[in-house]
Amino acid sequence: MPAMSGTVITLLTDFGLADAYVGAMKGVILGVNPGATLIDLTHDVSPQDVLQGAFLLSTAWRYFPAGTIHVAVVDPGVGTERRALLLEAHGHLFLAPDNGLLSFILPPEDADAPLYQPYRASLPQGYRAYALTSSRYWRHPVSATFHGRDIFAPMAGHLSLGVAPKDVGDPVDSLIRLVIPVPSWRDGQLVGYVLHIDRFGNVVTTVPEAALVGHDDVVVEIAGATVRGLVHTYAEANGLAALIGSHGYLEFALTNGNAAKLLGVKVGDEVKVKVREK
Amino acid sequence: MPAMSGTVITLLTDFGLADAYVGAMKGVILGVNPGATLIDLTHDVSPQDVLQGAFLLSTAWRYFPAGTIHVAVVDPGVGTERRALLLEAHGHLFLAPDNGLLSFILPPEDADAPLYQPYRASLPQGYRAYALTSSRYWRHPVSATFHGRDIFAPMAGHLSLGVAPKDVGDPVDSLIRLVIPVPSWRDGQLVGYVLHIDRFGNVVTTVPEAALVGHDDVVVEIAGATVRGLVHTYAEANGLAALIGSHGYLEFALTNGNAAKLLGVKVGDEVKVKVREK
Amino acid sequence: MPAMSGTVITLLTDFGLADAYVGAMKGVILGVNPGATLIDLTHDVSPQDVLQGAFLLSTAWRYFPAGTIHVAVVDPGVGTERRALLLEAHGHLFLAPDNGLLSFILPPEDADAPLYQPYRASLPQGYRAYALTSSRYWRHPVSATFHGRDIFAPMAGHLSLGVAPKDVGDPVDSLIRLVIPVPSWRDGQLVGYVLHIDRFGNVVTTVPEAALVGHDDVVVEIAGATVRGLVHTYAEANGLAALIGSHGYLEFALTNGNAAKLLGVKVGDEVKVKVREK
Repeated sequence: MPAMSGTVITLLTDFGLADAYVGAMKGVILGVNPGATLIDLTHDVSPQDVLQGAFLLSTAWRYFPAGTIHVAVVDPGVGTERRALLLEAHGHLFLAPDNGLLSFILPPEDADAPLYQPYRASLPQGYRAYALTSSRYWRHPVSATFHGRDIFAPMAGHLSLGVAPKDVGDPVDSLIRLVIPVPSWRDGQLVGYVLHIDRFGNVVTTVPEAALVGHDDVVVEIAGATVRGLVHTYAEANGLAALIGSHGYLEFALTNGNAAKLLGVKVGDEVKVKVREK
Repeated sequence: MPAMSGTVITLLTDFGLADAYVGAMKGVILGVNPGATLIDLTHDVSPQDVLQGAFLLSTAWRYFPAGTIHVAVVDPGVGTERRALLLEAHGHLFLAPDNGLLSFILPPEDADAPLYQPYRASLPQGYRAYALTSSRYWRHPVSATFHGRDIFAPMAGHLSLGVAPKDVGDPVDSLIRLVIPVPSWRDGQLVGYVLHIDRFGNVVTTVPEAALVGHDDVVVEIAGATVRGLVHTYAEANGLAALIGSHGYLEFALTNGNAAKLLGVKVGDEVKVKVREK
Repeated sequence: MPAMSGTVITLLTDFGLADAYVGAMKGVILGVNPGATLIDLTHDVSPQDVLQGAFLLSTAWRYFPAGTIHVAVVDPGVGTERRALLLEAHGHLFLAPDNGLLSFILPPEDADAPLYQPYRASLPQGYRAYALTSSRYWRHPVSATFHGRDIFAPMAGHLSLGVAPKDVGDPVDSLIRLVIPVPSWRDGQLVGYVLHIDRFGNVVTTVPEAALVGHDDVVVEIAGATVRGLVHTYAEANGLAALIGSHGYLEFALTNGNAAKLLGVKVGDEVKVKVREK
């Protein structure tokens, strides 16, 4: 994956925009590669909410050109023994702490542990990952509380200049993932969970579009409410509606309103999809 | 209007920055034209508030170099039959849903309908507009709920690479505008309306600077309050003051405070300007 | 300091991102230099809070490459006789109103005036500063309420194209600074103040790392709470903890919580550091 000076580097953090932490990271990157193109995915991940960061990363990275470097920092364990990773996947490069933030980049897998909790998983075949141990690519001195600025940012800069992934550090064969159950039909019923609530109050679930193919005629239950059938556009909805959202997941929307508030749901709540009884 | 790889593309939406919708749009643009320069105007338009989006677009586009492409997406009708437009005006290109978002780009006109409501208007002489019907410039598959990512973003990318406006789709001779009355003096009185309230609580009205030329010695009434004369700077104000703001409209400001809260006004409230009685 | 078309220009304001003021500034800069690289430090400085703006600027500028142009606009006195400045320092260029916003760029000094209040100080040896009086680099007409767009932005654009600092206007030999006491040990005690509270509720003080060298074994008092010893990472903390933050100052953090709320402190509150009694 040869990189050029104009390589795109995206940034996703929970730092917010009220402080200048993100600005400092960008300064470090431009100090290494003044020609890098820097794009914010979001910096409003709820503080230390790794699941939310992982989901939001998943909604955006695929729309970038091959060779893009994605830097994701939601990092409650900064300065501890937790590893910092580079993951090569789908022709993109991902830099993140090893805490589950890259869960959606890999193919889904089921795990026998509580919903959304972290567990250690093997790196799937065909993927490569490295621990960021090559300190010559870090900014020194390294602050124990801001690896975004001192490790991830300069590493992204060097990768964008053509440093090879294998040179960033030691290869790893496992990483931390979050438990995200893969819904599949059993006895005419799919069970999923609320995954994310967006700014409009739309409620995104773990039920992927693929699971619903051929099952348009469904009844969806969430928080005591029942929705019959799926609509295709927000405008088509009249009150509470279910649809496949732009992320490719089943979601709930409310005409001129906030579906999450109406339903009183939160991340992790259950959603059930059944075949419609005629 | 020949475009180069370094063309500036601005983005204005109501998507907020907490999700990564804007990031996804930028990824799509950079996938088409990695050399585009992407600039955010704002993404904090109140959800589905077309008037606010239209006003905010009007406060920024003119400061960009000729040839800039402005992408504006406040789009309650996404996925319905509402058209998507390209408007050529003032040497700039504007991409937006056909719902009134481009109201301030065209010369003002009076319409016989309720304040700030949409109506269909003829395209004024000297302007050209097209419906974005050339699907070869879209991203496929097109989500019914996210034309920003799948239609407007790739179209902006292609225009920035030199695609001619006439190739984006069929020419149109009308578009939706919002009713924004043009204040003019009648019997020593001007009637305008609150158009926007900014982050500082400054109250921007529909009364343009041009209408006040030669009438410095005025009395302004709003929400039961009376302000005599105009000041020139915020620092000059002492309490509630009226001035011509940086947008070129009559606005109200409060020294060390929030004029909108003090007055208790909202968008659409009336403001009257009278010649001062000595 | 020869500048190139790809020069980095950073922006820090209190304009927020809900309006398009920042977008307008960027349009003006790109109109002068389409090749400039524009980076936001933050635009969420509390309205007219010069101290906060000054601190946030200090946390980011040093991470940018030499030759970067930093535009900082927190400007309650816009349109009055207050000067607009260019400061050359540390191989960077700083554009700001003359109101204390550049306080942290210069070496610390003690002043006999109330905490965080502005006073006029001599420009230290080795620094150069100019008043932005060369109106040929301004955008005309100049709004009395938006020098960010009409003076600072175009000036930054011209500097990035290679205009020499000495050509922006008349040299000055003094500027406004804020009173920021320099803590030093007296009788085994250091007295500092709360300087900033960040998005996580971390409480940053005026006590610099340098003052604590060799004094790891300390007791810190703030708002009636006592913290013994310093930790090195947030994860290491268990409840309320004191540490040297990424900005290089003594700060307070609360495990999984908001230290500022727990302590009930605000900017300007006192903090005392003592040598630990065994």
